[in-house]
Amino acid sequence: MADQDTRTPVGIEPPALSVLRWDELPEGPAVVLLDQTRLPSEEVELICADVPALVRAIQTLAVRGAPLLGIAGGYGVALAAARGEDAARAADLLEQARPTAVNLGYGARRVERTHRAAVDGGAPADVAAAAALAEARTLHRQDAEASGRMAQYGLELLAELLPGAGHRLLTHCNTGALVSGGAGTAFAVALEAHRRGRLHHLWVDETRPLLQGARLTAYEAARNGMPYSLLTDSAAGSLFAAGEVDAVLIGADRIAADGSVANKVGSYPLAVLAKYHHVPFIVVAPTTTVDPKTMDGTSIVVEQRSASEVTEVTSRPGVAAGGEGGRTVVAPPGTQAYNPAFDITPPELVTAIVTEEGVISPVTGVGLAELCARSSQVTIS
Amino acid sequence: MADQDTRTPVGIEPPALSVLRWDELPEGPAVVLLDQTRLPSEEVELICADVPALVRAIQTLAVRGAPLLGIAGGYGVALAAARGEDAARAADLLEQARPTAVNLGYGARRVERTHRAAVDGGAPADVAAAAALAEARTLHRQDAEASGRMAQYGLELLAELLPGAGHRLLTHCNTGALVSGGAGTAFAVALEAHRRGRLHHLWVDETRPLLQGARLTAYEAARNGMPYSLLTDSAAGSLFAAGEVDAVLIGADRIAADGSVANKVGSYPLAVLAKYHHVPFIVVAPTTTVDPKTMDGTSIVVEQRSASEVTEVTSRPGVAAGGEGGRTVVAPPGTQAYNPAFDITPPELVTAIVTEEGVISPVTGVGLAELCARSSQVTIS
Repeated sequence: MADQDTRTPVGIEPPALSVLRWDELPEGPAVVLLDQTRLPSEEVELICADVPALVRAIQTLAVRGAPLLGIAGGYGVALAAARGEDAARAADLLEQARPTAVNLGYGARRVERTHRAAVDGGAPADVAAAAALAEARTLHRQDAEASGRMAQYGLELLAELLPGAGHRLLTHCNTGALVSGGAGTAFAVALEAHRRGRLHHLWVDETRPLLQGARLTAYEAARNGMPYSLLTDSAAGSLFAAGEVDAVLIGADRIAADGSVANKVGSYPLAVLAKYHHVPFIVVAPTTTVDPKTMDGTSIVVEQRSASEVTEVTSRPGVAAGGEGGRTVVAPPGTQAYNPAFDITPPELVTAIVTEEGVISPVTGVGLAELCARSSQVTIS
Repeated sequence: MADQDTRTPVGIEPPALSVLRWDELPEGPAVVLLDQTRLPSEEVELICADVPALVRAIQTLAVRGAPLLGIAGGYGVALAAARGEDAARAADLLEQARPTAVNLGYGARRVERTHRAAVDGGAPADVAAAAALAEARTLHRQDAEASGRMAQYGLELLAELLPGAGHRLLTHCNTGALVSGGAGTAFAVALEAHRRGRLHHLWVDETRPLLQGARLTAYEAARNGMPYSLLTDSAAGSLFAAGEVDAVLIGADRIAADGSVANKVGSYPLAVLAKYHHVPFIVVAPTTTVDPKTMDGTSIVVEQRSASEVTEVTSRPGVAAGGEGGRTVVAPPGTQAYNPAFDITPPELVTAIVTEEGVISPVTGVGLAELCARSSQVTIS
């Protein structure tokens, strides 16, 4: 793996992280994934030469993150078509691989529709398969472009909000290239700041219980040569008190019509700390994250996850779920846990929402609706 | 170990936890400790028949926690005297076992002074040794009594502050019998509430990085049959937002003259959340924790601890420090960490400080000084 001690000088970029790509191998086409369950200790590629292999990769969390799952679903259908298999059946299998991952079904269905339209229009199988692959590549490119625009808008916002030249940014969970077709959402803004020589320091919350900050964001920061430090989630309080945080940047799992933000548990306490310390709290998310059918924060149902995520610690969550990997029991047997997957930050605690279509600040339902109406993307819901 | 699934009905108390005791074994006197590095998976007693064994137990964190270390130091000197060894040399060895643990030296010196006074007064060796043991027992009893009084004052305060009959209390780190000659500080208040049928639920922060909440507080809660749930530190935000926390109870490592409270990292963000949600934030600590020489929060030097506590996770911190135990690396190699041992909560965020001498609310320097003046305890500083 990359030498994490060596920081890349500003201006010299490391090779782009190949998180997910289509490859034409001698033995046939394949979707090639970076196996995220092996990070940060190993960079191992997983070659998925057929749909069942891709489904397994999705189920074991080798590939994860909402936008990236959509792209995986799209390429999966293209893969089935290229192999002369039933594209509609492939879309079903992929969609069911993780039923709660909305983007997965979206990507698979979108490419399957393109394929079906080509077939219905009388295209030969290879032409229809090529159309499916082209649609998957379009989805991939659109996502990367959205990342780029969010990074740009986010950086402009930071320049407006923060007087100093070097930003000290705090982030939570993993929102980088590992969840996206591009550089991600919140992390993409920090990375863009780094590339422009404007990142003084990135504070990375470890993000209990699954430690995505430690395992994945620290990995991406190291790989990109960014100046960063890892911290336990509750040590963020000390950083705010010491005046060491200029802005908080987080992603979003879902944004309600009123601007309430559902994101990884631990986001809300950061928002309260940011408010108390007069520090901007910025949410970076594509407009597809906005769910106009969810009126407000109280309408969002928060998933409660297994107690074992808290009573045990593991370096490889996907593997540990199957009973293997480095599991360490840390609580007495029989201990129950309160383990919400995410929390809700109300709009009054959010300084701004940065999307690929622009920035909303202050955050209001009307502003959000106007921005989403400008979006050329299809809203997933 | 105790069956953690079985809750003791209110009113029927489990056998008291024997964390540290003096024992007259057939082979001679000994200090018998519960080995805290083996919790929560095993309840194993460690028999320390001489001072070097006790020093090892202190250094490997088999015994830990400020007041408990003071008691261990006291019994250690009594043990040397009982064995006809040099009590002053024993006090030196014990004091140096963990140089930053102020209470350890306090307990050892106090018992050594008693022993020396007896010797200087012409007492035979066995009489001087008995005097030393009596002084160690007095120290132990005084600490237990202080716990009892703090529990009582704390419970009265909760009754005043909270309208409901059943309290939902949130606590951080470990402040129970495992750190004390009695039932502890903040945990003692929750335990007393439970014994009086007034604890609805105890929310236990896991307390990263060393997981004292998961490993020790959950263990004590389970052992006492208390209704409790474990949570990641940042999930506390969701509990506050849902109105599920009636009060926060924490201990203190040090209290400055102005009422600023240094405690385990993660206490300050809880104080900010509590303020934002109008929930009482209560500090429970003996008057010996007040350091009148430290003027305010800014004067407290915060110890930065090893990055490996954050970049690795272990179920047995004391053992892991020696390179063994269940260590799991969770971050890329070379990752630096921001890892302060504690944080500072300013007095304006503290609703009340509960001591063995009474309650201070609102928290002011003058109130604190008056209360400490009433203390019959010798201030350790």
